[in-house]
Amino acid sequence: MSMHSSGTRPLELHPDRYFDADLLVRGIARSLYEETRSLPIVSPHGHVDPALLAENAPFPEPTTLLITPDHYVVRMLHSQGVSLESLGLTPTDGAPHETNPRAAWQRFAEHYYLFLGTPSAAWLDYELSEVFGVRTRLDAGSALAIYDEIAEKLQSPEFLPRALFERFNVEVLATTDAATDLLAHHARIAASGWTGRVIPTFRPDRALAVASTGWREEIGRLSSIVGAPIESAGALVAALAARRLTFKDHGARATDHGVRRPWTQRLPQQHLDAIFARAMDGKATTEDQEHFEGHMLIEMARLSVDDGLVMQLHAGVWRDHDESLLARFGHSMGGDVPMASDHVTGLHALLNAYGNHPAFRLIVFTLDESTYARELAPLAGHYSAMRLGPPWWFHDSIEGMTRFRQRTTETAGLWNTAGFNDDTRAFCSIPARHDLSRRVDANWLAGLVARHIVDLGDARRMARALAIDLARDAYRLPVPRHDK
Amino acid sequence: MSMHSSGTRPLELHPDRYFDADLLVRGIARSLYEETRSLPIVSPHGHVDPALLAENAPFPEPTTLLITPDHYVVRMLHSQGVSLESLGLTPTDGAPHETNPRAAWQRFAEHYYLFLGTPSAAWLDYELSEVFGVRTRLDAGSALAIYDEIAEKLQSPEFLPRALFERFNVEVLATTDAATDLLAHHARIAASGWTGRVIPTFRPDRALAVASTGWREEIGRLSSIVGAPIESAGALVAALAARRLTFKDHGARATDHGVRRPWTQRLPQQHLDAIFARAMDGKATTEDQEHFEGHMLIEMARLSVDDGLVMQLHAGVWRDHDESLLARFGHSMGGDVPMASDHVTGLHALLNAYGNHPAFRLIVFTLDESTYARELAPLAGHYSAMRLGPPWWFHDSIEGMTRFRQRTTETAGLWNTAGFNDDTRAFCSIPARHDLSRRVDANWLAGLVARHIVDLGDARRMARALAIDLARDAYRLPVPRHDK
Amino acid sequence: MSMHSSGTRPLELHPDRYFDADLLVRGIARSLYEETRSLPIVSPHGHVDPALLAENAPFPEPTTLLITPDHYVVRMLHSQGVSLESLGLTPTDGAPHETNPRAAWQRFAEHYYLFLGTPSAAWLDYELSEVFGVRTRLDAGSALAIYDEIAEKLQSPEFLPRALFERFNVEVLATTDAATDLLAHHARIAASGWTGRVIPTFRPDRALAVASTGWREEIGRLSSIVGAPIESAGALVAALAARRLTFKDHGARATDHGVRRPWTQRLPQQHLDAIFARAMDGKATTEDQEHFEGHMLIEMARLSVDDGLVMQLHAGVWRDHDESLLARFGHSMGGDVPMASDHVTGLHALLNAYGNHPAFRLIVFTLDESTYARELAPLAGHYSAMRLGPPWWFHDSIEGMTRFRQRTTETAGLWNTAGFNDDTRAFCSIPARHDLSRRVDANWLAGLVARHIVDLGDARRMARALAIDLARDAYRLPVPRHDK
Repeated sequence: MSMHSSGTRPLELHPDRYFDADLLVRGIARSLYEETRSLPIVSPHGHVDPALLAENAPFPEPTTLLITPDHYVVRMLHSQGVSLESLGLTPTDGAPHETNPRAAWQRFAEHYYLFLGTPSAAWLDYELSEVFGVRTRLDAGSALAIYDEIAEKLQSPEFLPRALFERFNVEVLATTDAATDLLAHHARIAASGWTGRVIPTFRPDRALAVASTGWREEIGRLSSIVGAPIESAGALVAALAARRLTFKDHGARATDHGVRRPWTQRLPQQHLDAIFARAMDGKATTEDQEHFEGHMLIEMARLSVDDGLVMQLHAGVWRDHDESLLARFGHSMGGDVPMASDHVTGLHALLNAYGNHPAFRLIVFTLDESTYARELAPLAGHYSAMRLGPPWWFHDSIEGMTRFRQRTTETAGLWNTAGFNDDTRAFCSIPARHDLSRRVDANWLAGLVARHIVDLGDARRMARALAIDLARDAYRLPVPRHDK
Repeated sequence: MSMHSSGTRPLELHPDRYFDADLLVRGIARSLYEETRSLPIVSPHGHVDPALLAENAPFPEPTTLLITPDHYVVRMLHSQGVSLESLGLTPTDGAPHETNPRAAWQRFAEHYYLFLGTPSAAWLDYELSEVFGVRTRLDAGSALAIYDEIAEKLQSPEFLPRALFERFNVEVLATTDAATDLLAHHARIAASGWTGRVIPTFRPDRALAVASTGWREEIGRLSSIVGAPIESAGALVAALAARRLTFKDHGARATDHGVRRPWTQRLPQQHLDAIFARAMDGKATTEDQEHFEGHMLIEMARLSVDDGLVMQLHAGVWRDHDESLLARFGHSMGGDVPMASDHVTGLHALLNAYGNHPAFRLIVFTLDESTYARELAPLAGHYSAMRLGPPWWFHDSIEGMTRFRQRTTETAGLWNTAGFNDDTRAFCSIPARHDLSRRVDANWLAGLVARHIVDLGDARRMARALAIDLARDAYRLPVPRHDK
Repeated sequence: MSMHSSGTRPLELHPDRYFDADLLVRGIARSLYEETRSLPIVSPHGHVDPALLAENAPFPEPTTLLITPDHYVVRMLHSQGVSLESLGLTPTDGAPHETNPRAAWQRFAEHYYLFLGTPSAAWLDYELSEVFGVRTRLDAGSALAIYDEIAEKLQSPEFLPRALFERFNVEVLATTDAATDLLAHHARIAASGWTGRVIPTFRPDRALAVASTGWREEIGRLSSIVGAPIESAGALVAALAARRLTFKDHGARATDHGVRRPWTQRLPQQHLDAIFARAMDGKATTEDQEHFEGHMLIEMARLSVDDGLVMQLHAGVWRDHDESLLARFGHSMGGDVPMASDHVTGLHALLNAYGNHPAFRLIVFTLDESTYARELAPLAGHYSAMRLGPPWWFHDSIEGMTRFRQRTTETAGLWNTAGFNDDTRAFCSIPARHDLSRRVDANWLAGLVARHIVDLGDARRMARALAIDLARDAYRLPVPRHDK
């Protein structure tokens, strides 16, 4: 099926994009957005590689920057029969693949129509236009000229990572790092004299995944880092506690956990020991892992009470559903699929243990929107430690964000939510994502104002909260002096 | 985070509140609402204490009237770290708590911004403005003046419960009462000569909850009321049948059942006897209770066929999820959380037994919106005995009501739904809730008219059905003579 | 409750029906719809009886044509206490029922208000107005005059099935046929010299339903048709493979499977043999059938790779939930109810086997809308063989279609969806359903244009894709020469 158009089309982002058609709503949305568009970017959760900002080397050429690492992009192309190899991704066995990035870029551009109506198109158009100054829409005809234009700019000092960080007006950027990460990049940034604030986030998933192939190696690394043997679950907790403090010393404000199901339950010591022993023998099952993680999440909450790190929980996704893709290309290439989640049963133990503790803060994310109004808003609208994370991953979109607010606000209000996360490894997409979020929030608020549910003055404060205050508060980030 | 504004702001409810921004839709909504706004209030399901209207004593001061008994309000404040003690709620052990209601009111007012965008704010603003004539918006600065204004009015004859009942134009108000309630308040009202119609609803939950601590006491009370021993499930059914007739004699038109899961299944006699015996020994399990209730719901349906009482089913909530809150303050303080529900499997036995019986009427409520279009509309759109109850609890809101109609109408139509329930223990909020419902329904219908899905004449009849006719019909309430 | 209006009302379909009230959106919707309204009808999945077009005899009178075979209509009337007998349906035991079709029609018309806001009303009004030229709205007063007007027209040559097929501008119509159907009607159409394209679809449900009462008879028929004994699962697969090729010879492009749950799993040979043996003894259980079907779906996918037939999967409905209705009237009378579905676990085996095979195509339908954004869009947005079928059955409606696009597009885009299916046995409703679909799609796209999410040029191509291109592509239908 062809969607090729003839001739060059200008790339112009409409100033009222993503606002309602209704002129009353649109006018209010525009005025609310005007107040937040220039606020700094607070990015408390994401996956940018800190090496980028430690090294501050020029970005590679456009395909490696914008296409191959973007799982939203490659999964869509894959779904329409465009092979990952043909886009320049390298199979783990080194099998033949496209090695000419311009050819891969051309292939991507020919299929760019597939993204019509998706957030990927919104983000990419923003990056092309606002970050790289491209004035022509990307399609088969314009592809190579745009490639060359971006490639050239990437060589200039204004497009070095730190320069973009400053131009993007990033107040703070949190990375996500394994328990065994030595945080050398973060240390190098701190030692460099550069004032950009890049902080780590403690994510010990690999150290808790007792059924995964790499678990024992991770435990070995962890043991050697903390300088103590890890031969029991208790020793593992102690090692993680130590690493948390190191992360905190490097500026971390939060931890993060990714599990298949939101499940927590204290295990009897004997049960815990048995799982740990099986894991050490390389014989732990998937069920063992679920039980072990369920127990350890409560332990991690306990540590959060002690060290003050905010706990994030990203649950509800079947990672690597496509096993042949995993074998051919490794993790996070697009084969992850959300699952139905039960937070009411699954978080019962954790919330009963620490859900009302004044020192505890838990931010919960879901990919199961049916739980927004049914489970998450009622839980966050009750337990004082709990906040709702913003719409995650597949739901980080115009319709997705709107549904989130429509389904959570009436029960949880605004102040039990945690502001916006860009949650991206694509550094250049950060301003695109915050801009989209601020527009969609402004538009949602404008609908409330137009229907006389809140008044304009309140909506202005709510817009600012959504853009920046809620994120600072939820993640216990310091408020810059000029902003107090 | 502060949301304090400076200066006093007038409290003015906009005449077009909750209507779409679009002027065409808004105009139609306004005209539809104009036809229903002054209709009497039919309240077939709620939790007002009948003692209020039996005694007709002045309401207490504002905090006790509007804050401490409202679980929507206290849960939101709790979720933001405002303790229930500081709001004036009394812990079960009598531990220290705020005893100055003006201080509690001030605390509430300081956090009133948390309710922005929630139905609580809509209801409270209506009560302040329309019931109490307050002309200033509630915030930290205006709190005490408003407190005093309301406190003074509560002492005047126009604010006695019966006077408000008449001013609210309540045609009928159903309370909810345990099987062992002697209905003395209802009898007193009937004997008083006052013409207000206050009818009981038969809710035997405590008599069926075989695993709960109070079950044996409840059975003891029931036995003594009916004057017969209750030593088997059959005897229990007989006792409940007798109580139902007594309730019917006091004007009841309906029963109600609250269970964790919508589950029905006939038990073999032996199984039933065994559960009853375990329960008598205080050893029934949660699973026993689920089986017992599942069986007894079918028995209750059978009784409904006999005595004509409409059966209501409120299922799908984990009561007292927060166990420490339960221990400290008792039931219904905000720690209840909805769960995913399966009505297709769960109601199969009941609907196959009585779902098409012309004498049976079953009104089903859910907190799991994902079942609206998937399960409930198809079931109600088939079984002749079944009606859908209105959006319940967390979903009794502008967005919640709109989603309900958008997801049920195309399969179940309007006439398989049961009109509106205010479902409240907060007497003064009754007109607020009906007004909000009539506005949202009018607006939804206006959208159908504007899109030429129904015409204006049909929409007018539908608006009236939603405001009053469907409730009268679903609950088999008599139509007043002047309205026939 | 009465909804009778006095006087005759004209039946006029508004030219902007189903478009947003907002004038900007409406104008764009109108222009998009103008481009698709006259395109031919591609109907790749439906349930029209091919005998209709083979015999080309006049349709029976209006009640038999429009009411008794329409499960949407009879279920709604049944739900409001109008018995199926009173509508002219014949109980299986021949018990008394209405035999005067005019009386049944009158009864239907008196209850036509029940359909306000439902797709049935939209479709029926279109049929009355656009197919039959009726100019008066159907109600109790106009019923019999309308009946007579339609009855008379049905006798004229312009209302013969083939004449309507041509007037409806049907490019291709797929029927749905059992594995043991000899396709005599299709052969007769092909041999007739008439150029209308009517193709079969291979749906072997009865041959796979090992726990159903008719299974052994179906296997017997199948065995005799293919001329080989069927004494093992392997022999059954071979017989089905042969029948698929025969269907393909008669023009089939697709297969279809209906199962209760979307579940696939390869069985060990021993397990498979044991189930087959139990089935042959008439002792297979419901669980056996689920396992058997789960295995056979993977086998069918393998055959699709070989023969190129597109595989459709319609899963997630509890057929004949109302057992007394089943006993009295047989299947498909309205007692079918959707269930929650898990596609992530259930389709794992099938998708891992063939989900990325370039020769495979799988179109998945659901009745569980909560899976649109959570499961189906992510799966179809990854696996190259998978497409999303259009909103099915209860969701084939204005709101239902809109929700489908709002929840799937941001992750799966447009090109992983399969266009529209009318999915109807009601031949005269085909143009009504396509018209409604084109209007709703145009309106959804207009919303994207008005919000500057896509531009008008792209939206025009997307509208055409939704109306015709995606269906041709997904079902591998040939593109007519004039359209290439």
